[in-house]
Amino acid sequence: MSRFWSPIVHSLTPYVPGEQPKLANLIKLNTNESPYGPSPAALAAIRAAADDTLRLYPDPASDRLRAAIAQAHGVGMEHVFVGNGSDEVLAHTFQALLQHDAPLLTPDITYSFYPVYCGLYGIAHQPVPLDEAMRVDVEAYRRPCGGIVLPNPNAPTGIALGLDEIATLLRAHPERVVVIDEAYVDFGADSAIPLVRQHPNLLVVRTLSKSHGLAGLRVGYAIGQPDLIEALNRVKDSFNSYPLDRLAQAGAEAAIADREWLAQTTGKIIETRSGLVSSLKNLGFEVLPSQANFVFARHPDRDAAALAAALRERSIIVRHFRTPRIAEWLRITVGTDEECRSLAEALKAILNRNAD
Amino acid sequence: MSRFWSPIVHSLTPYVPGEQPKLANLIKLNTNESPYGPSPAALAAIRAAADDTLRLYPDPASDRLRAAIAQAHGVGMEHVFVGNGSDEVLAHTFQALLQHDAPLLTPDITYSFYPVYCGLYGIAHQPVPLDEAMRVDVEAYRRPCGGIVLPNPNAPTGIALGLDEIATLLRAHPERVVVIDEAYVDFGADSAIPLVRQHPNLLVVRTLSKSHGLAGLRVGYAIGQPDLIEALNRVKDSFNSYPLDRLAQAGAEAAIADREWLAQTTGKIIETRSGLVSSLKNLGFEVLPSQANFVFARHPDRDAAALAAALRERSIIVRHFRTPRIAEWLRITVGTDEECRSLAEALKAILNRNAD
Repeated sequence: MSRFWSPIVHSLTPYVPGEQPKLANLIKLNTNESPYGPSPAALAAIRAAADDTLRLYPDPASDRLRAAIAQAHGVGMEHVFVGNGSDEVLAHTFQALLQHDAPLLTPDITYSFYPVYCGLYGIAHQPVPLDEAMRVDVEAYRRPCGGIVLPNPNAPTGIALGLDEIATLLRAHPERVVVIDEAYVDFGADSAIPLVRQHPNLLVVRTLSKSHGLAGLRVGYAIGQPDLIEALNRVKDSFNSYPLDRLAQAGAEAAIADREWLAQTTGKIIETRSGLVSSLKNLGFEVLPSQANFVFARHPDRDAAALAAALRERSIIVRHFRTPRIAEWLRITVGTDEECRSLAEALKAILNRNAD
Repeated sequence: MSRFWSPIVHSLTPYVPGEQPKLANLIKLNTNESPYGPSPAALAAIRAAADDTLRLYPDPASDRLRAAIAQAHGVGMEHVFVGNGSDEVLAHTFQALLQHDAPLLTPDITYSFYPVYCGLYGIAHQPVPLDEAMRVDVEAYRRPCGGIVLPNPNAPTGIALGLDEIATLLRAHPERVVVIDEAYVDFGADSAIPLVRQHPNLLVVRTLSKSHGLAGLRVGYAIGQPDLIEALNRVKDSFNSYPLDRLAQAGAEAAIADREWLAQTTGKIIETRSGLVSSLKNLGFEVLPSQANFVFARHPDRDAAALAAALRERSIIVRHFRTPRIAEWLRITVGTDEECRSLAEALKAILNRNAD
C-alpha cells in the first residue's frame, strides 16, 4: 500500500503463472510447453535477424508476419492482429472490445487470467458454471452480457466444443463480441476461424507458445473482421507502437510458414497423449477427454496436492490449482513418450507407497 | 466506429511513430536510432539463446537482466522494473502511478506519446509551456497536480535540465510521482538515478533503443524505490506475465554489461553532433543546445515541411512535426559522420536552389 499508487493498483489481484524453475534436470509438465523445439526454420530466421539491423525499430505493423498468418488461415491481412504473446492480445481485447455495462461471461473453471483482466479494466465478471461432466454448456450463456470469452479447448479441462455449439453462441449474441481463445486448438479441436466471415462478432485468439513450441518468443495473434481488428490497433497504438521485436517477427513468420513441423510435432503429442491417458486410467485416475496438449486427471482416493508434492520430490512438476471445484485435479502437460513413462512410473510408486 | 467497441476506443487518438520505411539506401535520420549496431556481445548472446530452449517460457521476472541493470547503476534488484520497450514501461507507469484526481503535468512540447497514455487511462493532462528559449522552467511546475512526466533531455528539443532543477521538482511535490524519462541521457546529460535513494517519489525510465543501439529488441526499464516498482509489477502481472522474451532478456543483459561499447559509441555520436551543429549553423540554421542523439533546428526563412520534403527527394529522411510552436523546426538524428556530411551537403544544395 502506498500513497503514490493509482487507486486501481490497490485492488488488483495479479495472475500467478506456473512456476518456471531455475533447476535443471526436472521433468517439467506444468506449463503446457511443447516437448519439441520450434521449427528449425524459425531458429535459423532468428539467428539471421540477430545482426546490426537490431539498431533499427521493427515494423510497427508486423506486416510480413501478419501476411504469413493471413496466408496460413486463408484470410486477408486486415483480419489479423499480432501481439507480444496471446496474453497481450487478450489484454488489449478486454480493454478494446469487452468493457461494456453488462458483465462478461466466462466459464467458472477456465484460464485464470480472464478475471485478472476484468480487474485491470474494471469489467464486471460473471462466471458460468461448467456442467457436471466439466463441459461448457452453451445454453447456460443465453443471458444478457457485455461479451463472452471461452477457450476452445477449455483449460484446464482440455474439453473442446464443436463448431456448431460456437455458432449457436455467436447467433445468440449478435451485438456482443465472442472471443474464442484457441491456445490449444492445434491438438485436436476444430478452429472457429472459418466462422469469422459470417460472424462480425467473433474474435479468435491464437498463440505460438504451445503448438509451435515458441513459449520463449512471446507471439500471439487474433483473427476477426476488420472492425474488431481496428479497435485492437487503436488500443495497441495508444499503448506501445512496437510490441514485437525484430527477432520475434522473423522467427514467428518462419514458424507459421513451416506447416510440416507443426503437423509432425502436434501429431506426435496427440499420439503420446493417448498413451498417457491409458496409463493414468490404469492407475485408477479419472481423466477428462482432452483435445489439448495436457490432461486433467484426479484419483478417487488420493489428495491432488499431496500427489503433486510427491511428484516434485521425484523431480517431476505438474500443475495443481488450489481452486474450488478443481482442487482434487492435476493438470499434466503431455511431454515426450519418455517423460510420460517416467511420470506414470513415479505415480505408480507413489500410489503403492501410500497404499502401504 | 462500431457497436462492438468499448466506449473508450472511440475517443482514442493513437500515437503515430516515425516512419519505418521499407526502402533500402535511405539515410534515415528520423527516429533517433544509433548509427552503430548493438554490442557484438549482445548479438552473440542472442544467437546463443536461439535454440530449442525457446520452447520454454521465459523468466517472468527477468531476474538476470534486472540484476545486470541493478549492477550497472549501483542499486538493488528490487529497484528495477523491466518492460517491452520503455513505451510499455511508460504505459504501465501511467496506469499504476499517475491515475489520480489532479491533472498530470508534462511540457507542452515533448514526447507526443504522453498525452496518448493520458487518453488511454482517462488521466487529465495539463501541458506546461516551455519558456521562450524552449527550456523546461521548473518553477512553472509549482502547481497542484497528480504527477509529472519530464524527459531529460527533453525531446524533440534535446535540451537537458540539471540535477539541481530535478531535485527542486522532487521536493516541490513530495506526495506525487515525478517520472524522469532518460531515453537520451547517455548523450551528455546527468542521470537522476543517484537521486532515487533520497526521493521516494522519483521514477527514472530508460530504454536500450537509443544509446545501446537496440531499437529493434524492445527493452526498457524503470528505477525507483521498491514501493513504486511494486505498483508497476502489479499492473504488469495483471497484463502480461512474460513481457520480455528469452532473446530480449539475453541480448539486453549482455548489452548492459558491455559498458565499453556504450562509452565508445555514445562518445562518437557526441563528437559527430558537434560537427553537425556547426554545419547547420554555417547554413544559417538556429540550433538548440542538444544533449541528445538528435538536434532540433530551424531556418529563419525556409519552411521546415518543404525542407523535409526536399531532403526526402534526396533519400534523406528527418522528422518534422506538424504541431503548433514547432512546425518550423526539424528534428535530425545524429548519424555517422558521413551521413551528417551528406545531410549538410543536401541542405546546402536545397537552400541554394531555393535562393535562385
